[in-house]
Amino acid sequence: MSVMRSIKNKAAIVGIGISSFSRDSRRTELRLACETIKAALDDAGLTTEDIDGLVKQTDDASDEHAVTSSMGMGNLTYFGECRWGAAPSAMVMRAAMGVATGTANYIVVYRAVNGSSRRRMIPSMRTSGQMSTSDLLQWTFHAPFGHMSEAGRVAMIVRRYMHEFGINSEQFGWVPVVCREHGAQNPDSMYYKKPFTIEDYRKSEMVVEPLRRLDYYEDADAAAALVVTTAEKAKDLRQKAVYVLGAAQSMVPETEELNSYYRRSISGLPEMAQVGKKVFSMASVAPKDINCVQLDDSYGPFIPMQLEEMGFCGRGEGVDFCNGGNRIRLGGELPLNTSGGSLGEGHLYGMNHVIEAVRQIRGMSTAQVKNARLVLVASGAGSPASGLILGGK
Amino acid sequence: MSVMRSIKNKAAIVGIGISSFSRDSRRTELRLACETIKAALDDAGLTTEDIDGLVKQTDDASDEHAVTSSMGMGNLTYFGECRWGAAPSAMVMRAAMGVATGTANYIVVYRAVNGSSRRRMIPSMRTSGQMSTSDLLQWTFHAPFGHMSEAGRVAMIVRRYMHEFGINSEQFGWVPVVCREHGAQNPDSMYYKKPFTIEDYRKSEMVVEPLRRLDYYEDADAAAALVVTTAEKAKDLRQKAVYVLGAAQSMVPETEELNSYYRRSISGLPEMAQVGKKVFSMASVAPKDINCVQLDDSYGPFIPMQLEEMGFCGRGEGVDFCNGGNRIRLGGELPLNTSGGSLGEGHLYGMNHVIEAVRQIRGMSTAQVKNARLVLVASGAGSPASGLILGGK
Repeated sequence: MSVMRSIKNKAAIVGIGISSFSRDSRRTELRLACETIKAALDDAGLTTEDIDGLVKQTDDASDEHAVTSSMGMGNLTYFGECRWGAAPSAMVMRAAMGVATGTANYIVVYRAVNGSSRRRMIPSMRTSGQMSTSDLLQWTFHAPFGHMSEAGRVAMIVRRYMHEFGINSEQFGWVPVVCREHGAQNPDSMYYKKPFTIEDYRKSEMVVEPLRRLDYYEDADAAAALVVTTAEKAKDLRQKAVYVLGAAQSMVPETEELNSYYRRSISGLPEMAQVGKKVFSMASVAPKDINCVQLDDSYGPFIPMQLEEMGFCGRGEGVDFCNGGNRIRLGGELPLNTSGGSLGEGHLYGMNHVIEAVRQIRGMSTAQVKNARLVLVASGAGSPASGLILGGK
Repeated sequence: MSVMRSIKNKAAIVGIGISSFSRDSRRTELRLACETIKAALDDAGLTTEDIDGLVKQTDDASDEHAVTSSMGMGNLTYFGECRWGAAPSAMVMRAAMGVATGTANYIVVYRAVNGSSRRRMIPSMRTSGQMSTSDLLQWTFHAPFGHMSEAGRVAMIVRRYMHEFGINSEQFGWVPVVCREHGAQNPDSMYYKKPFTIEDYRKSEMVVEPLRRLDYYEDADAAAALVVTTAEKAKDLRQKAVYVLGAAQSMVPETEELNSYYRRSISGLPEMAQVGKKVFSMASVAPKDINCVQLDDSYGPFIPMQLEEMGFCGRGEGVDFCNGGNRIRLGGELPLNTSGGSLGEGHLYGMNHVIEAVRQIRGMSTAQVKNARLVLVASGAGSPASGLILGGK
């Protein structure tokens, strides 16, 4: 009765599919989901009959049974869901656990959302019927005072970070500028050929101090899917296999989603520190070995914090690391969100970051890092978090 | 890069906690969850500090972060959720996968619901904001005609089953009678000392033909939790370890939740057949080896169908198997739902069935089967399904 030590090297991503990002997809979320799943299967050289597992984001509009029925899939032996911003990396981790334990052989991970044309996923007071009792309980303490928006909740954390490390809000501009630079090269991006400058950033509307309009994501219509199988089976398939070398989830004490205000310090992302520690240890690599990163840029100021927490620079040095953009843009020492990410490609709740990591390792990104062998993905800044280290052979 | 063949024998349930079942718990669902988690930890001889994983039912009102904050837990390295009636066995399976892959060491599975005093979980037209797009899509075809209740959806399947096998609805009475007999012996049951006879059943109100009031569950307030760890770590703990010998999920083509009407035949539960096949094969045992079963009795007529699909009797013979109750009551060849289950203890969406399976193997049930060594649990009849075979050593 021996225990497998970890899922390291047990699973690989063998197919990917992603839609273009737009403000109106002009088709249903279910159709978007099926289209990208079909694309991922075609990419891998698999058919719907091969699929015996599905993993989804909890709030996704397309249930597993709707997908199986619409696509004519057969029997599933594995299905389940992950929540929060942590979902994308956690979904791949779940799929890796599924194939590593023999629970299923070919598992599809999917996410489809008409976030712009149809609905926002994030619960608001209007849709409180969808919130858990415990979320409502936490909101009780600030919602009556008007502290209700997602950006407003994030702003509190960013303000404290600025205070502790003497940061001026204009300094946050380089992350959105670079993400948009990368996205402007990506034909599927919502911002293809639409870069902006640091001056544009500085002039951009201040929405919730210290967050400007360009500091955070805009809702999009988009979908993505990928296929995970065992490392062995991956060898027989069409594409270069992209292995799951490290995978982790983390929830630390006093976590709330984007408003973990009861911690001793609120200027950091301690769950990301835990994720970093775990994925580096599992993959037996260090930050200096990583060729590019796909981090959670739903809110730009969370990027320097993630770089710090995961050990790419010291505490309080993240903003300096990003300053001028040269380190984090293509050609720099640590290119960031090379498809554009949430700020420069479009918001798909982090799934596009995973897809882009796979493209980098395959060498097919529109902002390709030379010889990218190790890519780190982080999901869920400011909330329960997860991460991956993906690599080629 | 070898692949673990299965999770068989890799994980054990080492602690359980369960509340009493009532129509008004007089406390919040979060408190119920924490109380039963505390009970499960005490039972195992563990503390909150040992816990590094949480698995919940998707619709549970108590989020993982509310539980960790309320109980003072530390860092979690694993968290996630499972949905539908399939959840209970699937949650244990998830936890087993978690410890088998080293993702976490001690994982709590919990479920708490004030289903009677506060809210029903099942979506209704009133709460359609909580339904997925694809559920709404499916409902579109029957809801406008008034075919809206859960029992109504089940009734269609049961009616076809009766038609195909020449069954009279009165014959379904023995399952609720026996479940209530068992529940009447259980002090925590909502029906303690309240058995009913087959005559009471026959006189009971017909609600949605062919379903009588006593054919289906009544909402309850209740909670349960359990702790899963590795087979190795289980040896050092206080209680007799209960091993996960078999675990499976199944979703077959054209599945919808309780209204899979587009199948060639609607008189069976094909997902349960798949679950049975898989758990028996994984555990290397046969139906005749099972000492008692804890099956999904949300709707009594689904019990004979489950017995057939899982191979305890031939197709169409389930009602005869249950006739008179002698085979399925304590002392019979295959005692059923010995704590009472949904019909005789109270409705906790199947979590009480898992707890009771553990009690049987430990020898501490209020309707104890002599030398129970192998117990089968099935979750989610009429919807995506899951199952477990639990055993002692």
